[in-house]
Amino acid sequence: MIPKRCYCVFAADRPGLLRDLAACVAARGANIESINHVPGTETEMYLDVSGEDDPEQLHRDLQAVAGVDHVDVTESSASVFGKRVIVIGGGAQVAQVVLGAVSEADRHNLRGERISVDTIALVGETQIAAAVRAVGRLPRASILVLAGSLMGGEITKAVCHLREHNGIPVISLRMAGSVTEAADLVVSDPVQAGVMAVMAVADTAKFDIKRLKGKAF
Amino acid sequence: MIPKRCYCVFAADRPGLLRDLAACVAARGANIESINHVPGTETEMYLDVSGEDDPEQLHRDLQAVAGVDHVDVTESSASVFGKRVIVIGGGAQVAQVVLGAVSEADRHNLRGERISVDTIALVGETQIAAAVRAVGRLPRASILVLAGSLMGGEITKAVCHLREHNGIPVISLRMAGSVTEAADLVVSDPVQAGVMAVMAVADTAKFDIKRLKGKAF
Repeated sequence: MIPKRCYCVFAADRPGLLRDLAACVAARGANIESINHVPGTETEMYLDVSGEDDPEQLHRDLQAVAGVDHVDVTESSASVFGKRVIVIGGGAQVAQVVLGAVSEADRHNLRGERISVDTIALVGETQIAAAVRAVGRLPRASILVLAGSLMGGEITKAVCHLREHNGIPVISLRMAGSVTEAADLVVSDPVQAGVMAVMAVADTAKFDIKRLKGKAF
Repeated sequence: MIPKRCYCVFAADRPGLLRDLAACVAARGANIESINHVPGTETEMYLDVSGEDDPEQLHRDLQAVAGVDHVDVTESSASVFGKRVIVIGGGAQVAQVVLGAVSEADRHNLRGERISVDTIALVGETQIAAAVRAVGRLPRASILVLAGSLMGGEITKAVCHLREHNGIPVISLRMAGSVTEAADLVVSDPVQAGVMAVMAVADTAKFDIKRLKGKAF
C-alpha cells in the first residue's frame, strides 16, 4: 500500500526509541513502509506510514512516546517522489538515458503522475552487480535501465534475480555481453531507452513492457 | 554514522514485527539508519544498521525473532549508492544539470567515491516547495540543485528551511524569482551547476561551497 503520510518525529535519542514508535504504529494496525533516521543531539525519524485508520490518533500516540519532543505530519516521500526509474552504468550513457527519462517524466508528471529518475555511474562487474541487486532494496524502485557497452557475468545473474525475485523489469541498452539476453527489453538509442522506461511505469502512458518482452529496438 | 550492512529480513507478516526487530537492534546498542518494507505474503524488511559491534550475533538475534524465515546480510544502500545529489525543476533544465552531474559523479566514483544523482521534474510552486522540503527527509541527500526559470515564494521558504534545519546546501540556476537570494551558490550554465554540485559533496574534489557562498557564475 502506498503511504500517504510521513510522521516526522523529533526526539531525544535513546535506545529503543524506534521499537516504541513501531509499537505505536503496530497497535493501530498500520504499517511503517519506510524510515529514515537522522541522528543528532535531537534525533529525527521520518516514518512513511500506510493503513492508519485515524491519523490524528496515531499522531497523538507518537507524541506520547517517551523522549519525543514533537511530531509533524507531512506528505510521504512516496507521494512527493513517486515511482523511481533507476539508471545504472557508465557516465556517458547514463547521462543520455537520463536525458530521455527526465524529459518523458516531466510530460507525465504534468498530467498527474509522480515519476523520479535516479542514477548511479559505476564501473566494474562486481560494483554494478551489487548495485543491481540493491535496486530491489530501494523504496519505490519501479524499473531499471542498464546503460553501458559491456555487461555480463555477475551482472546478468543480478538482473535475473531482480526480475524474478523483486518483479522489477529491466531495460538494457543494446551492448556486448550476456545482459541483453536477461533483460525484458533491449534498446539501441539511450534517449529512447529512458523514454520507454518512464512509459513502462507511467499510468498515463499506453505502453506494456510485457507485450514487448524479448524485443529489441 | 554510515551503515555498512543491510540486514534483509524475510518473514511472515504480523503486527509488531518491526517493533521486535528494532528491539533486537537496540539491545545490541546499534542503530537502524533506514528501513524499506516490502509487503507481501512473505514480507521483506531491509534494515540499514550502523554501530553493531558483533554483526554475526545481531544476524543470529534477528533470525530468532518470531515469524522470521531467514535473514541475509549484504552491503547497505549507503555503501552502494553513497551520497545523493538531488535535482528538482523543469524537465529541460533538470536534464541538462544531470548531464553535468552524472559525468562528474562518474569521474569521482572511478576514484573511490560513491555519488548518485537523483531527479524529479515538477511544475508549480506548491509541488516544488513540497519536494524541496521532502529532500530533508530523504536518506543520504547531500546537496540540492534547483533547475528552472522562475522560483520564489514558498519555494524560497522551503530552501531556507532545508539549508538551516537540515544543513543541506542548495545550488540554484540563475533565474527569475527570489530563490537565487536564498541559495548558497547561483550558476548560469546548468551543466556546470551539476558538475559543481558533485564537486561540493565529493571528498575527491577540492571545492568548498562555503568559500563561494553568495557568489554567482
